[in-house]
Amino acid sequence: MGEFDYIRWLRGQIAASNHVRVGIGDDCAVLRPAVQETLITTDMLLDGSHFRLAEVGAQRVGRKALAVNLSDIAAMGGKPTAAVISLGLPRANTNSVAEDLFHGMHPLAEEFGVAIAGGDTNTWNGPLVVSITLLGEPGPAGPILRSGAKPGDWLLVTGSFGGSILGKQFDFTPRVREALTLQRHARPHAMIDISDGLAADIGHLAEESGQGFVLFAERIPISAAARQLSAGVSPLEHALGDGEDFELAFAVDPADGQRLIDEQPLAGVSISHIGLCVPEPGLYLESAGRREPLPPRGYSHPFQ
Amino acid sequence: MGEFDYIRWLRGQIAASNHVRVGIGDDCAVLRPAVQETLITTDMLLDGSHFRLAEVGAQRVGRKALAVNLSDIAAMGGKPTAAVISLGLPRANTNSVAEDLFHGMHPLAEEFGVAIAGGDTNTWNGPLVVSITLLGEPGPAGPILRSGAKPGDWLLVTGSFGGSILGKQFDFTPRVREALTLQRHARPHAMIDISDGLAADIGHLAEESGQGFVLFAERIPISAAARQLSAGVSPLEHALGDGEDFELAFAVDPADGQRLIDEQPLAGVSISHIGLCVPEPGLYLESAGRREPLPPRGYSHPFQ
Repeated sequence: MGEFDYIRWLRGQIAASNHVRVGIGDDCAVLRPAVQETLITTDMLLDGSHFRLAEVGAQRVGRKALAVNLSDIAAMGGKPTAAVISLGLPRANTNSVAEDLFHGMHPLAEEFGVAIAGGDTNTWNGPLVVSITLLGEPGPAGPILRSGAKPGDWLLVTGSFGGSILGKQFDFTPRVREALTLQRHARPHAMIDISDGLAADIGHLAEESGQGFVLFAERIPISAAARQLSAGVSPLEHALGDGEDFELAFAVDPADGQRLIDEQPLAGVSISHIGLCVPEPGLYLESAGRREPLPPRGYSHPFQ
Repeated sequence: MGEFDYIRWLRGQIAASNHVRVGIGDDCAVLRPAVQETLITTDMLLDGSHFRLAEVGAQRVGRKALAVNLSDIAAMGGKPTAAVISLGLPRANTNSVAEDLFHGMHPLAEEFGVAIAGGDTNTWNGPLVVSITLLGEPGPAGPILRSGAKPGDWLLVTGSFGGSILGKQFDFTPRVREALTLQRHARPHAMIDISDGLAADIGHLAEESGQGFVLFAERIPISAAARQLSAGVSPLEHALGDGEDFELAFAVDPADGQRLIDEQPLAGVSISHIGLCVPEPGLYLESAGRREPLPPRGYSHPFQ
């Protein structure tokens, strides 16, 4: 073959299998054993690329490695069940790095009912590598994909956006409980967690749903951190582009959306109505009544 | 806590969970969702530790990364179903390394009916990291653990041992089909795949079963590679200690054992009777009618 197309290869593999109902394109794959569906997701964090061990310490790395996977299960509306953890530990301070990693993971595993089912622990001459695979079961609404948004749907989000580099990128609470609660109050048509950035990930929702989204600039909840950061870049730009907010964005019927906004059923986490699903593909920003195309932000390429 | 005990922590996590029936100590964890059992295993291969990319090339690395996980599913008597693949790709020749990895994995995934359900692909400044998590379903006998060997059981093995460094460590065929065929001819009480080394892994069977094993020196099938290597170290020492043979060792009733030896039901793969389960804990080598304790070989420590 010519240039290697990892995504195309994966899609082909997934399409060919009876065991996989949905694969890439969503936050988790959905496995279909004989009788029940299983969610599966995996994330690898690498020192120097996703974090700097010397700056943040292994405890926060361990917590984040599990939390990003929990956020993917949340994005499908699922309930996490079991994880396996593979480590490449550096030779310097191996024991204390391992201990700190697990001190970071352990409380989160307890809090979210994740069984650590096994793993593979190695030391090597390279930097710290943490790879976690997390399984889950679908929530009451079944797996919530990225592909179900319909024109006219309201776009809702949890929490606020931007400036996660000031701390939230490590200390966020994955929205597992919130995603389960949502399903008792509404039927989300499509959902995603915001990791690449609000604009980039709503772009993913749009693309997978074959629709477009309009974002209402004045309604986007901007975090205090985004305002604090904004020298040269506006708080809104931070909110749209920073990423690693690990909040949920989801599309619902307007009636469901209105009820969620009125009832605010998530303990301590606000729900905001920030946009609208439209039949024109792409992403648009509406500000002071003017709607303009929103240029692509964030990035995702095969080898990110 | 004092010195960090990863294994103890894992065991505690596993014991506390309704979702995990067996965890570490075996080759795969067994997950227990509401209605069906799922096998899960994970292995991480690191450049400079498990292979040297510049020497072996990415295609063999990709193949091995999947094959070692397949061997773990085989060791439980299971049927592989789906995998997720996480990569840390070096910046040098990223595309060709990725392409070669998948050219190594793809034929094996096809051959063994493994659906690639997703993954996480990264580039970084470090050496190549490949982490695969493989799921499976139990075979007709249910999950075959390490813990079921009984005194009087025969110890049988597939294939031959030693010298895998000459090539078999990369090019081995995981014994998935053989493990499934075995279950149609016998009821293995306990099973393991030989990765750490024949003596070390039979030691694991002994320990998990709370029994001991006697190995009959003259009956251990020694590979041509082990004989080729033996300068200073005897072929038998190679067979007992080299590891990465990825053959199966299993304990069965003597009647089952005799039938398997007579029938040889595995196409192109021999079954040999190499030992006996005894009530005295530990490992023994019997040679020319003399039985002596076999000192521990290979090694396994928390951060191997």
